[in-house]
Order: sequence, then structure tokens, then C-alpha cells
Amino acid sequence: MFELLIQSIKNHIELTDAEADQICAAMQVKKTRKNQLLIEPPDYCNSENFIVKGCLRLYFLDPEGVEHTLAFAAEGWWITDLGSFFTGEPAKYHLEALEDGEILVLRKDKLDELFETIPALNIYFRKLYQNSIVALNERLLNVISTTADERYIRFIKKYPALENRLPQYLIASYLGVTPEFLSKIKARIAKR
Amino acid sequence: MFELLIQSIKNHIELTDAEADQICAAMQVKKTRKNQLLIEPPDYCNSENFIVKGCLRLYFLDPEGVEHTLAFAAEGWWITDLGSFFTGEPAKYHLEALEDGEILVLRKDKLDELFETIPALNIYFRKLYQNSIVALNERLLNVISTTADERYIRFIKKYPALENRLPQYLIASYLGVTPEFLSKIKARIAKR
Repeated sequence: MFELLIQSIKNHIELTDAEADQICAAMQVKKTRKNQLLIEPPDYCNSENFIVKGCLRLYFLDPEGVEHTLAFAAEGWWITDLGSFFTGEPAKYHLEALEDGEILVLRKDKLDELFETIPALNIYFRKLYQNSIVALNERLLNVISTTADERYIRFIKKYPALENRLPQYLIASYLGVTPEFLSKIKARIAKR
Repeated sequence: MFELLIQSIKNHIELTDAEADQICAAMQVKKTRKNQLLIEPPDYCNSENFIVKGCLRLYFLDPEGVEHTLAFAAEGWWITDLGSFFTGEPAKYHLEALEDGEILVLRKDKLDELFETIPALNIYFRKLYQNSIVALNERLLNVISTTADERYIRFIKKYPALENRLPQYLIASYLGVTPEFLSKIKARIAKR
């Protein structure tokens, strides 16, 4: 249950067994159901979520009711509305479970306690966040500089395990195209 | 010279005078000239840059020679090609000085030393990075969900001091439109 989380942390910092136990004790295990909303604005988002099993999606619902997908996350990733989590302001983004699954929930107050007792966790999250910034810059660049065809090819490379797990309309939302246009892209690429 | 940097750090963590001196001693002061390239792919980028005076731009030059602006940064901000800086791979982005100015350069090996001797710096950078992620998600959302008019209005709000300091073609590059189209946007907004 906690193996993936502890391994993720040990990839970046050293942990004693006692520290690993302390981290596991701070997490709440939560089952997720397909289509369940874990964050729904304007709720407050006071937890970080580590995915043990399943796939989640972070999206923005605009005033016209259109969903804009910012990110997907699967096993071994953290995902939350980071702005709301750290500032305490209402959430801006929806977080949706796309499959039945299982996550480890870490409340803000528990994380703050862990930062106090295991300061090396600052190193772990600093490194995760720096990797996120690199990935977000690439995603941004893809959106502003490439065609939808190229964005689709990059999506497959970035999330190789997800292409067949996700409904096509969600992939279209991530790429910023209509589902019909995504079908055309896939047909075009299949012909090459 | 170092006042802005030390203040930026003290906004997030406590520092003794000795620690502040150690940080200042790790920085190299560098004058920048307008249009100077501080990072030019495929160079390796081995420094983080804190801006004391002036304005910098991070952009991607695509194979067709088109520049895509990812970010601007002015006084009090850090900016670098974070992927290259942390992985040691060649830089992907150009970093250009847009004005004559002054920056504090922190080499990777010096930063690693500082993380060892002043572990609280991990907290400082963790917090800066988490703020960057929030800002990058918003920028991404702006690009995928809003019209160019809205992107321009958000640009002015995000960088209120920069609108009159930057050439219009660079603002157009950041918004993902042509300079001619930016003129039309500004005319439309002025009429409201």
C-alpha cells in the first residue's frame, strides 16, 4: 500500500525506518470511484494526493461550462490544486478520478508537521516541484508552438500508459481540440 | 547590491547574518547588456540567475527560426533553464537580457554547497517553485482557454511594470500572436 510512496521518496532522499513509518502514519488511505470529484471549486483544497492505483485529471471549468484539462496523473504521481493547497484560498480546479482506484491523502497540517520533524522532505518536494516546472514549461511550449498533430504525438510519449485508458474526449480536452478533430489527427498519423 | 536577494529569502525563511554573508559570497555579480544572450542552446546552463536590475526573457527558438516566449522576469525574480540546470543536459531555451542591468549568478556547485550548509534554503526554493507551478498552471490555462484579448489583459495584470518597458513584438510572442494582431487587440481594448 505505502511501498510506491516510500520508494518515490527514497529515490530523492534517505529515510530511516522510523521516518518512513511516520510518513505512512500521516497519510489517509482513500478509495476513489470513477468520475468522483475529489476537489470541486469553490471548495477549499487542503490535501495533497499520491496515487497508488488509478488515474486522475485536473481541469478548469470555464463560465461557459467548457472543461479545460491541465494535467493527468497516474500511479506514483502527486496531484492537487497546489495554489489552493498552499494559499488556503478556494480551489480553482476540479480534480476528478477517471478510474476506480486508491490514493493516499496528506492533509496540509500533517504535511507541515512532517516538514518540521523530517526536514529532508523539503528536499524531496523541492525536487518534485523543479521537475514539475520543467514539465510545465514543455507543456506550455507545446501548446504555444506546435500543431495539434505534434501535441498528440507528445501526449503519447509523455503518458505512454494512458492513451488506451482514457476516453478520447478527455485527450481532446488536454490537446485543446474537439474529439472529432482528434479522430482526424489519429487517422492522419496512422496513415504515415 | 545583495539587499533584494536577502530580503527575498527572508520573506520565506529565517537567516542569521553569517548565513546571509555565506549566500552573498556564493553569488557572482554580473552586468548584463541589452540583447545579450545569457544562455544559448546547446550550451550547458549551470547557473540560476537572480535579477537585481533589468528584465530578462526565456524563449524557445524553433527549427523554423520562430521565437516562442515562455516567460519574462524582472527585479527580484530568479530565472534560468531549470531543466538544463538540474539535469546537466544541454539547454533548450535561450535566456536574453532585454535591458542593460545587473544579475547575481549562482553556479550549480555553489548552490549544492549552500543546500548542505544552510538546509533551510530547501524550504525557500520549495516555496518559490510551488509558486512557479501555480503561475505556470495559470499561464497554461490562459493559453488553452482564453482569447488573445483576455491573454493581453492578464499579461498586463501579471507584469504591470513591464508593459511599457518591453518591445511590442516580444509581448506578441508571449501572447502567441503577431505584432499586427497585438495592435488590433490594444485598439479594441482602448475603445472599451
